[in-house]
Amino acid sequence: LIKFSLPPIFSNLREKKTKHDLRRVIHSVKVGTALVLVSLLYLLDPLFRQVGENAMWAIMTVVVIFEFYAGATLSKGLNRGLGTILGGGLGCLAAALAQEVGGIGNAIVVGVSVFIFAAAATYTRMIPSIKKRYDYGALIFILTFNLVVVSGIRAEEVMTVARERLSTIGMGFAICIFVSLFVFPVWASDELHHSFASKFEDLALSMEGCLEEYFSFMSEKENQPKANFSICKSILNSKFKDEALTNFAKWEPWHGKFGLYYPWEKYLQIGEQLRELAATILSLKTCLQSPKQPTTQRETLKEPCEAVGSLLAWTLRELGESIFKMRRFHAGASIVPNLKSARLELGSVLSLSPSKLMENGDHGLIAMATLVFLLMEVVEKVEKVAKEVEQ
Amino acid sequence: LIKFSLPPIFSNLREKKTKHDLRRVIHSVKVGTALVLVSLLYLLDPLFRQVGENAMWAIMTVVVIFEFYAGATLSKGLNRGLGTILGGGLGCLAAALAQEVGGIGNAIVVGVSVFIFAAAATYTRMIPSIKKRYDYGALIFILTFNLVVVSGIRAEEVMTVARERLSTIGMGFAICIFVSLFVFPVWASDELHHSFASKFEDLALSMEGCLEEYFSFMSEKENQPKANFSICKSILNSKFKDEALTNFAKWEPWHGKFGLYYPWEKYLQIGEQLRELAATILSLKTCLQSPKQPTTQRETLKEPCEAVGSLLAWTLRELGESIFKMRRFHAGASIVPNLKSARLELGSVLSLSPSKLMENGDHGLIAMATLVFLLMEVVEKVEKVAKEVEQ
Repeated sequence: LIKFSLPPIFSNLREKKTKHDLRRVIHSVKVGTALVLVSLLYLLDPLFRQVGENAMWAIMTVVVIFEFYAGATLSKGLNRGLGTILGGGLGCLAAALAQEVGGIGNAIVVGVSVFIFAAAATYTRMIPSIKKRYDYGALIFILTFNLVVVSGIRAEEVMTVARERLSTIGMGFAICIFVSLFVFPVWASDELHHSFASKFEDLALSMEGCLEEYFSFMSEKENQPKANFSICKSILNSKFKDEALTNFAKWEPWHGKFGLYYPWEKYLQIGEQLRELAATILSLKTCLQSPKQPTTQRETLKEPCEAVGSLLAWTLRELGESIFKMRRFHAGASIVPNLKSARLELGSVLSLSPSKLMENGDHGLIAMATLVFLLMEVVEKVEKVAKEVEQ
Repeated sequence: LIKFSLPPIFSNLREKKTKHDLRRVIHSVKVGTALVLVSLLYLLDPLFRQVGENAMWAIMTVVVIFEFYAGATLSKGLNRGLGTILGGGLGCLAAALAQEVGGIGNAIVVGVSVFIFAAAATYTRMIPSIKKRYDYGALIFILTFNLVVVSGIRAEEVMTVARERLSTIGMGFAICIFVSLFVFPVWASDELHHSFASKFEDLALSMEGCLEEYFSFMSEKENQPKANFSICKSILNSKFKDEALTNFAKWEPWHGKFGLYYPWEKYLQIGEQLRELAATILSLKTCLQSPKQPTTQRETLKEPCEAVGSLLAWTLRELGESIFKMRRFHAGASIVPNLKSARLELGSVLSLSPSKLMENGDHGLIAMATLVFLLMEVVEKVEKVAKEVEQ
């Protein structure tokens, strides 16, 4: 069976890869287009007469804001806007205050205010909850505040400069949003959704592969690819990526099948449990590798283990599909008792033939059975969560 | 014992937290100082006469480059410098070419070159190996190229503008490096080193806590804090942070006890194995939670398990300490046989009393013993790596 299941994985991977690559190319072309559009502010005389040198800020905005995912672009753009307005406003106030003082006090007030605001904003940036969503905004706040308050010393018309820059930043933002959201958008929410559904499939595959390898009796152990476990490991390490995607997905407006209040937090919870499951499957690996496990005794376990394995794999796939299609998990009611009886059956296999299994301190086998048992507990947990998700 | 071992953890955590907080405050003050320093370019008349409006670029550089870790600041600064020089150079060439063409062709050449370079650089940014180290440089390349080539249409003296901006960026960079590296520097390499040593300690603690909880016979199970497993999970999820720190550490110049070619890659490899170990310990948790485990039979296992547990914890602590102090793992020669004999002993406990253990399908216990056995395999692996590290 492993022979039959491997080619689909590979072709699947290749497909994913070309799809991934295509998306990258599209993204690159989009960035190029957005930059050419924003450069028109410079290139076309009538436009340039309107905005002047400030067109620079529009270009800068586009380069810095334009991200791969639509949600990331939106989040950065809004952060930049917010940071600029706040920083500009406070900067103008501080500049006005400094001008009131006048003389050498002017420079001192500017220096002190720069120090205080920069230090405070930097400290704020490092608070985890703010770092997660408003890191870039705080950065821009510091930058704008500093530029405005400092140039207030030289230029008289700080307000005009600030207003003009803000408007060009707005233009840059508008171009970004237009290109990012309306021309082949890449939604972080789609990516998160797909990656979640495929995680279930991956876990099912790697569990099947594990059982197959265990019961294939040494003969071809060497030429077995270890791909299964690298999938498990990548799921284990997926926390950071999931969190980033969830963060972007939250910024994304209503689109496609996702409503505005789609429960993205649930994904993180399920992700946590999938990672625990992956950790358990990874522990199975060590059972595979431990030596001196007589084949005759494996035979005893083969049938019930495979039955449980295929039931588990089926359950995982069903769960993944129901999440993918966003429908309620219909089979839920019938699956819990199924899993329970399978677990009891495995337990009875162990207790019926304890002496046989144990006769030469054969840890590997028992580890196997025990881990399947653990697996089932985790699957039950996942199942509960999947039922919670609803729709 | 768990009662005794918990207060140290907490006070340790609190200590870590205040230390962490202090470092944040110091960082904030450093950013403030650097910004005031760079603002002097604006505030002091003689300096301003030299640099003019370009002082803006110095401020921008400081705000954007100054990061928490010295290595991150260096990496961003060098990236920015490289990107600016490359982008500026190519931009000047493209601008000159466009001027050769002249007329309406001028604008077309500019537009086309912006599109091509922006798309190509964006695509390059998404290649993982480049993204890891040169992401920011590519961004700055796009920005500078675009600004230079576009303003080449309006301004005649592109070269002077480019040179002046580059020099102010250099000033900003110099201020950053000075403040970041010479005033209370926060080294990513130190952070990585400490976090690694403490990971060993954390694993030892959580394994001890796990065994304690298992053999504390239900009575106080409810009021047992689950802190142990959150530590394990944080180790499991540490891959991203470790990679980032390693990346920064590589940029950091020779300092303190780390040479220029300190083997940071080894840390990643050991980290991988520690994560596997954490996954195994996490699986122990499920054993704790599975019900119906008669206390009398736990008693049988208590002594050998605790012996193995303390041996493992001791080994982990020794390993952590030897990494922390960067000395060769002296005990290595004596520990491998110790672990082996402990494993054999555990195995014999299992095989001596199989029927007793098995009589009512008591999976939990066996899982326990098996997982300790797995643990030992992983510890052996870690040990090998630790020996490899050498000093």
